[in-house]
Amino acid sequence: MSGGTPQEALRRRHLGAVLREVHLSGPVSRAALAARLGLNRSTIMALTRELAAGGLVVEEPTRGTGRAGRPSLLVSPAADRAHVLAFDVGVDWLAAARVGLGGVVLDRRWTVRRRKYPDLDDVVTVLAGFARELDAAAPPGTVRVGAGAAFCGMIRPRDGMVRLAPNMGWADQAFGVELGRRLGLSAPVPVGNEAHLGALAEHVRGAGAGHRNVVYLHGDVGIGGGVIVGGRLLDGDGGYGAEAGHMVVNPHGGRPCNCGSRGCLEAEVGEAALLEAAGRRGPAGREGVRAVVTAAARGDPAARRAVRRAGDWLGVGVANLINLFNPGVVIFGGMLRELYPAASAQVSARVAANVLAVSRERVRLAVSALGDDATLVGAAELAFSRVLTDPLDVLAPAAAEGGRRAGQEVR
Amino acid sequence: MSGGTPQEALRRRHLGAVLREVHLSGPVSRAALAARLGLNRSTIMALTRELAAGGLVVEEPTRGTGRAGRPSLLVSPAADRAHVLAFDVGVDWLAAARVGLGGVVLDRRWTVRRRKYPDLDDVVTVLAGFARELDAAAPPGTVRVGAGAAFCGMIRPRDGMVRLAPNMGWADQAFGVELGRRLGLSAPVPVGNEAHLGALAEHVRGAGAGHRNVVYLHGDVGIGGGVIVGGRLLDGDGGYGAEAGHMVVNPHGGRPCNCGSRGCLEAEVGEAALLEAAGRRGPAGREGVRAVVTAAARGDPAARRAVRRAGDWLGVGVANLINLFNPGVVIFGGMLRELYPAASAQVSARVAANVLAVSRERVRLAVSALGDDATLVGAAELAFSRVLTDPLDVLAPAAAEGGRRAGQEVR
Repeated sequence: MSGGTPQEALRRRHLGAVLREVHLSGPVSRAALAARLGLNRSTIMALTRELAAGGLVVEEPTRGTGRAGRPSLLVSPAADRAHVLAFDVGVDWLAAARVGLGGVVLDRRWTVRRRKYPDLDDVVTVLAGFARELDAAAPPGTVRVGAGAAFCGMIRPRDGMVRLAPNMGWADQAFGVELGRRLGLSAPVPVGNEAHLGALAEHVRGAGAGHRNVVYLHGDVGIGGGVIVGGRLLDGDGGYGAEAGHMVVNPHGGRPCNCGSRGCLEAEVGEAALLEAAGRRGPAGREGVRAVVTAAARGDPAARRAVRRAGDWLGVGVANLINLFNPGVVIFGGMLRELYPAASAQVSARVAANVLAVSRERVRLAVSALGDDATLVGAAELAFSRVLTDPLDVLAPAAAEGGRRAGQEVR
Repeated sequence: MSGGTPQEALRRRHLGAVLREVHLSGPVSRAALAARLGLNRSTIMALTRELAAGGLVVEEPTRGTGRAGRPSLLVSPAADRAHVLAFDVGVDWLAAARVGLGGVVLDRRWTVRRRKYPDLDDVVTVLAGFARELDAAAPPGTVRVGAGAAFCGMIRPRDGMVRLAPNMGWADQAFGVELGRRLGLSAPVPVGNEAHLGALAEHVRGAGAGHRNVVYLHGDVGIGGGVIVGGRLLDGDGGYGAEAGHMVVNPHGGRPCNCGSRGCLEAEVGEAALLEAAGRRGPAGREGVRAVVTAAARGDPAARRAVRRAGDWLGVGVANLINLFNPGVVIFGGMLRELYPAASAQVSARVAANVLAVSRERVRLAVSALGDDATLVGAAELAFSRVLTDPLDVLAPAAAEGGRRAGQEVR
């Protein structure tokens, strides 16, 4: 049903399946690959050899094999040779990283956002500068096989258009196209919402690994959501799904929200609500949240009330999400990594009171395992998804055409 | 990866794909099947011949073909030959139907539930009696290829265990197993939550047809939810997802809910809340809702207030679901088919106020196209799913073993 002969299509699908397995689970023996993918060992050998020749995997004898006979080779992702560029436009910062196959962050650049409302050119100029530095620092012989970006806003998947990013003052900005152009690529850089990509990263290699259904909540100025349903990222018709921060939890008399509505989860739980309830006018951002949480732990009454209040509203939101998605785990990322541990009693009380027993039985609440790397790692996964679907499609032009398509570059 | 040779596995997959296409889209030419499935016409011809020989499809010349040359045959589902039994245990009724391939309801039985809290044996006895009547009335030469049931409760998919059905007073009742036993089958009857199956039916052949993302709300005493995400039914880890009726919309001071919590969507919008707000103590159920809606339309002030109040809460729930799922359509079923048209102004006002603009752009709100048949048709789809996955697996034992496996019976 795709181009080429059925045999060729099957071989490409198998190459992708092997590479995906190596990328996701790390060093793995040929024997284990054969078992997991239901293929015979001679087929696996041919596939891993081809991937090794293309520089995507490395084959080595398993350590400690002193026995006679042919040992099963260990297949590892060639993290130091095949990598992607991952970008992250957060509410407070701009970041970029070189991420190797297997999800290893090899090198990174980071800066605070200097202007509250930067324009498209400001942002892309900083990121393109980071990309040049990361490329220049990459060892010779390494291959860039893609690029991807996370963005704190609502993104049109087709072309990486930022439809809405109230915290930046952006509407309909061609971020993916412009970043692709500035990187010298012939296609837009794929872009995803930061919480969607955080969910993807936690699902692939964080606190959500091994779960079919995962809810991820990312706190910053607002609250973003990303949901894995049946092993796949929930997108929705336009790519705008999982907006948990704009679930109305306080429909009558709720606080005004950046989106124009009132009583949204993020209006009740976000940084502004927390600091205001604690009677503080100090620095916002992660530092401000940490200060309130620390003061609450020391017994400051206003800070304690603020943390409890935010925890109760957070619990309402979490309870609703568990009733709707029946997930195995709910993961707290961004500033919620600070708030949730301090307010876990309030969250748990709401879960106990408001979640149906059958959905409460096995759900786990956890903080992000990847921390601030979650969004960058998720952007890298977005970039890797093409090479994992069809490794040959990436290798061929990278070698033959100088690799200017969709983020490729041979150094 | 499955049994048999790769060629055999491929043939079975293709048979399933062709049968699914015919089942879902009705009469279709071989040429159209070839185009839609990306297979060549000689392959399609071999597949449709095999399905026709098994009695699952009928091939006829396309009407009005007076031209020379070989006309493309029209392939139709053999609705009058291959059918399933579908059961529906609703809050107020018990129903069963014989549903033909292609989703045609051929014959049905229906009764009000005489006891408010029937036990497992009561319910299964009525349904098994319906099954005998439907089987006896089926024409000779027809083949029963499966059975499925919808139930107004939380269901464990693996074995059709009713985990919780507060409206019936049930917890952990082996409904699927017992119904299978009483029908003389060697496996449990597959069972699904009524709102999940309503969503499935509306997605396959109702108001959600053609949409990737669908939210379905089913009103009875409570409010059930079913959600299609990326073309697939959202289940969640245990099969208990999409419980939209227990989304807390009124967390402080909300009405008590049957589930033990307060302020759930169904506590604010369900029949009891509506009738109480209208100051009525008359008959509950669909009749009671219809009486309030009719009185509101005639200008009765208490009824108008009750409808507006319920509409506002329903709007909060709908807005949250649109923000979370970014669906193409939200469908109102059960008693919400009465309430929504009367309260659409309140629902729309909440959607306008509380849904992010990008998700509001294209979403449509609609009443169920299948009406009270939605759950039965969904139960039939559950029953058909096995024959659509592997038609041979169903045909072979139906012919060879007397067809007592998983609902089969040759008459």
